[in-house]
Amino acid sequence: MTILDGKQTSTNIKNELKEEVQLRKEKGLKAPHLAAVIVGNDGASMTYVSSKVKACDFVGYDSTLIELPSETTEEELLNQISDLNNNPDIDGFIVQLPLPKHIDEQKVLLAVDPDKDVDGFHPTNVGKMTLNLSTFLPATPYGILELLERYEVETSGKNVVVIGRSHIVGSPMSILMSQKRPAGNATVTITHSRTKNLTEITREADIIVAALGKAEFLTGDMVKDGVTIIDVGITRVEDASKKRGYRLAGDVDFASVSPKAEFITPVPGGVGPMTIAMLLKNTMLACQRRND
Amino acid sequence: MTILDGKQTSTNIKNELKEEVQLRKEKGLKAPHLAAVIVGNDGASMTYVSSKVKACDFVGYDSTLIELPSETTEEELLNQISDLNNNPDIDGFIVQLPLPKHIDEQKVLLAVDPDKDVDGFHPTNVGKMTLNLSTFLPATPYGILELLERYEVETSGKNVVVIGRSHIVGSPMSILMSQKRPAGNATVTITHSRTKNLTEITREADIIVAALGKAEFLTGDMVKDGVTIIDVGITRVEDASKKRGYRLAGDVDFASVSPKAEFITPVPGGVGPMTIAMLLKNTMLACQRRND
Repeated sequence: MTILDGKQTSTNIKNELKEEVQLRKEKGLKAPHLAAVIVGNDGASMTYVSSKVKACDFVGYDSTLIELPSETTEEELLNQISDLNNNPDIDGFIVQLPLPKHIDEQKVLLAVDPDKDVDGFHPTNVGKMTLNLSTFLPATPYGILELLERYEVETSGKNVVVIGRSHIVGSPMSILMSQKRPAGNATVTITHSRTKNLTEITREADIIVAALGKAEFLTGDMVKDGVTIIDVGITRVEDASKKRGYRLAGDVDFASVSPKAEFITPVPGGVGPMTIAMLLKNTMLACQRRND
Repeated sequence: MTILDGKQTSTNIKNELKEEVQLRKEKGLKAPHLAAVIVGNDGASMTYVSSKVKACDFVGYDSTLIELPSETTEEELLNQISDLNNNPDIDGFIVQLPLPKHIDEQKVLLAVDPDKDVDGFHPTNVGKMTLNLSTFLPATPYGILELLERYEVETSGKNVVVIGRSHIVGSPMSILMSQKRPAGNATVTITHSRTKNLTEITREADIIVAALGKAEFLTGDMVKDGVTIIDVGITRVEDASKKRGYRLAGDVDFASVSPKAEFITPVPGGVGPMTIAMLLKNTMLACQRRND
């Protein structure tokens, strides 16, 4: 059993990007500049955003954090986005989700210039992904592809089962892995809440991507020997034995599944850390496209 | 065994649209206006385009056919597209593919205003489709959904196997049928040239969409009893017994598969006729969005 170490791999990627920034600076080229917009003060969102800013510092990117109060109107936010679209120094930016309920998320995502949409959430970028054209891939699926590729996990002709059909993980994952590309060419089955015979399906899988958001849902009896497991879930589970009162659990029951697995991602330290690394990679791409 | 009669269904749809045009005219609203651009004089393309124009006449749409010589430059074609984008009377238009080799197809498709892209080929529309937002669905997959819906073929929780991953049929089909929508909510497996155990997979399928473009590829031994078959292929097969020297064959061996099928589309007269009907439906939607 090999652990797909997302923490280490993301550190490797960040070190590669750091070198690339260094090289750019030596050549007199600008460093990538990422901006992040956060509306309100949701604790989890603030943690995510600040870790993105920290990662920028680490690799030598410029970063701008725009914190707006929770009473910000949709119009004010759209104006802010328009400013970022028009600011030539900003290579890419993200709007941290979720947004307060009085703001139409879809409208906001549509307002982001697709060429600066390093989250890959704009329909134009989603469409380019679906058409297998060069674009910003959404960070979590992109991170999974990168992890599979760097560990040389064979995917071509393999049976991949994706559990969950969310727009940010399950759906793009199923699209990407079926395409002609590195970590692609797989025979992909996408399953979800309406799937009737899930265990039958997962037992035939060479690779399972669990992205449904239910703690320890996938158990050892649901997988075959030699399976590769990608665990996208991360849920807080009450645990009185922990000082903070909870532990972090994935969608996979690691204890029963890992003995049967050839490759498996841990939680935490698997898919999670890859996400920020891929956001940085997208920002580098945006910078190169805009400036070089 | 029930034949999914695409010819009859498409006639029904066209009659519905005809009535809708009539109602629009009574209310003093404009009729939808579809334009088609064709470059060169490829026989098959000219047949397709003229049947689209004929269908417009039937339902009472205005239509404009723009025939350009095969030596048209990319720039000239892009100028033509720009004119169509800016012409307020045109609600939607299509550029008949394939284009001559000296023209970059991708560049041309990207130049079409997404709001007039009734073929649903622009990345922005493909992205909206992937995100399950309202948009112009590509005509062939849209026609298949419509056929399944009108014949009340149950898809929710069913195992659907799509054979082929083309951008115009296989890929969108697999995306659409896995989504929460009418004729959706299925557990979808997408298979292609790299798939290793295809017969094993198709034998488990409740519904098979064959879209690989190989005449009579899917045979009776590859399917289970009670299967629903959607045959997207249409190939000319030499046949000396026919006056014209060939017959039209689907991707499905109808003789061996149909006795096991609950529902099956014939070729011709199945998926094919639905395509033009759905193009007309998209054009009506474009017209309503632009004018009402």
